Amino acid sequence: MSPDPLPSWNDGATKTRLIDFVKRITTEATSDFVPAPDRIATIDNDGTLWPEQPTCIQFVFAFDRLKSLAHVRPELRDTQPFQTVIDGGLNVLVTLDADVIIEILKATQSGMSTEQFSQIVAEWLTIARDPRFGRVYTRLVYQPMLELLDYLRANEVKSFIVSGTGADFIRVFAEATYRVPPEQVIGSTMRTEFSVGEAGPVLMKKPEVEVLGDGAGKPVAIDKFIGRRPILAFGNSDGDKEMLEWTVAGSGPRLVALLHHTDAKREWAYDRHSKVGRLDKALDLADANDWTIVDMATDWNTVFPRTGS
Amino acid sequence: MSPDPLPSWNDGATKTRLIDFVKRITTEATSDFVPAPDRIATIDNDGTLWPEQPTCIQFVFAFDRLKSLAHVRPELRDTQPFQTVIDGGLNVLVTLDADVIIEILKATQSGMSTEQFSQIVAEWLTIARDPRFGRVYTRLVYQPMLELLDYLRANEVKSFIVSGTGADFIRVFAEATYRVPPEQVIGSTMRTEFSVGEAGPVLMKKPEVEVLGDGAGKPVAIDKFIGRRPILAFGNSDGDKEMLEWTVAGSGPRLVALLHHTDAKREWAYDRHSKVGRLDKALDLADANDWTIVDMATDWNTVFPRTGS
Repeated sequence: MSPDPLPSWNDGATKTRLIDFVKRITTEATSDFVPAPDRIATIDNDGTLWPEQPTCIQFVFAFDRLKSLAHVRPELRDTQPFQTVIDGGLNVLVTLDADVIIEILKATQSGMSTEQFSQIVAEWLTIARDPRFGRVYTRLVYQPMLELLDYLRANEVKSFIVSGTGADFIRVFAEATYRVPPEQVIGSTMRTEFSVGEAGPVLMKKPEVEVLGDGAGKPVAIDKFIGRRPILAFGNSDGDKEMLEWTVAGSGPRLVALLHHTDAKREWAYDRHSKVGRLDKALDLADANDWTIVDMATDWNTVFPRTGS
Repeated sequence: MSPDPLPSWNDGATKTRLIDFVKRITTEATSDFVPAPDRIATIDNDGTLWPEQPTCIQFVFAFDRLKSLAHVRPELRDTQPFQTVIDGGLNVLVTLDADVIIEILKATQSGMSTEQFSQIVAEWLTIARDPRFGRVYTRLVYQPMLELLDYLRANEVKSFIVSGTGADFIRVFAEATYRVPPEQVIGSTMRTEFSVGEAGPVLMKKPEVEVLGDGAGKPVAIDKFIGRRPILAFGNSDGDKEMLEWTVAGSGPRLVALLHHTDAKREWAYDRHSKVGRLDKALDLADANDWTIVDMATDWNTVFPRTGS
C-alpha cells in the first residue's frame, strides 16, 4: 500500500470523497478519466488555505505598513481615514468597510516598483506574528490543505488560487508556502505603469485597485486568466458560491467543496452570521446538492503545521 | 549526438545563440543556471508565431463573422461602420483604425456564452483559408517557431503567448497548434457576465473590450497575469519593444529576440514603414544592444509546416 497522501485528514466520508475523485479522474480508459491538461482546480485563499479571522491577513499587513509610513509621512496621522485606523488599531480595522480598506491599500502599496513591493511583503512575513497563535503567517496555513495541494499536484491537477486579496501579496509567499507559482495566483490587482528608472525599466505601482470581487467576480476572473472551467473548486464562504456553481455545472466529473469553520478551540467557528467569510447561502446549496462539506473539527486531526512557528 | 532540436533553423549564429542560451540556463552548478520554475518565456503571436499580413487573422475572422451575421441581422448592412466593411471587404478592413475594428469585434463577438464563442471560432478555423497561401490558419504557423516552443518546453521553459489579439480567440487553437494551454495565453479580453441559463451557470460575453495594448501594455499584462519578469522574450515589432526592454533588464541570463520579416517570396517582407507590425525603433535597439535578430530569409530553411494544408 502506498502511504496515506492526506495524513492530517481523519478517515471518513470527506477524505474518501477527495481520494475517490482524484482516482476517478486519473484512471485511464474510464468514462471519468480527465486528460492532465484539463485538470484545473481553483482554490480560495483566505479562510480556505489560511485563516481570515479576525480580519484578512493582507489588511494586517496594510495596517502595519500604514503605521510605518506614518513615521516618515506624519501628515497621515492627521488625514482620514488613516488617523482613525492608526489611533484605533486592529480593533478599528476589523470594523471598516471595503472602500475604506481600499483607500488604505492605495496609500500604502503604491509609489514603488513591483520588485520593491514584493521585498516589503517578504520582510513583513518574516517578522509579523498572528496575535492569537503566535506564529508567522506562512506557518499559519492549514496543514490538511497543504497536503491536498501536494496530492493534487502529484496527480497532475494544476491548482490556481483565486482570491479577493491582492495577487501581488499572495504571490510573495505562494511558491514557498503552497508550492503554487506566481502565475497560478489570481487576485485583485493594482495598476502598474512602465517606467524607465536608474536600474532600467521597472513597473511602478499606482494607487488604483482593480478588485477581484467575491461572488460572480470569481468565475469571471477564472475565465479571463485561465480560459476554461475548473473541474475542482474549493472555498469556504458565500463569496465562493458562484465559483462552485459554475464549476459543478461543467460536463464530466466535478468536485466542489466548502471548508466549514467549526473549530473555535483550534481555529475559529463561524458561518451564517459572520461579518468576515459569511457562509450561509453556499451552505444551503451544498446541503441541497450534496457538495462536499469539510468540517474542520471532525475532518482534520491537525490544523496548522506541527513544526516551526 | 542528440537529434537537432531545431531542424528548420539554418546552422549559423542565430541558431547557436538560441541553443547556447537554453544550455546555459539548464546547466546545473553554474552561475547562469536558472531553476525550472523561473524559466518563463513570453512570446508575441501575430507576426511572431503566424503571419499578420495583410492584416491580423482575428480581423479576418471578425469580417467573416460580420458577413454571416448580416444574413440574420440585415440591419447591419445599413449601419456604419459595418456597411462600409461589408461592401468593401478585406481591402477596406486592412485600412481601418483600431477603434473601428473594436466596434466590429464588439458587435460580432458578444451576446453568446464563452463556450459558444469558442465553438464558433473552432468551426471557422476548420474552414477559412488564407487567400495567398491557401492554407487553413492553424497550418499557417511558423514551423521554426513550433520547434522552438517544443525545444523550450523540453527544457522546462514555460512559454506564454502575449498578444493584443483576443485571448479567447487564440486559446481556441493554441493548445492543439502550439501546445500552449489556455492559461498560458495572455491577450485582449472581453468583459463577461455570470448568468444562469437553461444549461446552468455560464459566462456571457458583453460588448466591452479590454485591449491589451502594444508597447508598455505588454510588460504590464505580464506582471498582472504571470507576476514576474520573463527570462526570454520574442517579438517582431515596435509593439514588443517594451516587453523586450523590461525582460533584458532583469538580472541573470536573458534572451530577447526579434523576428525580422525579410522574405517576400516565402512569406512577407516589411519593417520600418509597414502599417501592420512596424519594426523600426525596436530594430535600432536590437542593433545597438546586440539583441538576437532572426532573419527569416536566411535563418529559416522552412517557413510553414511541410505537411497538411
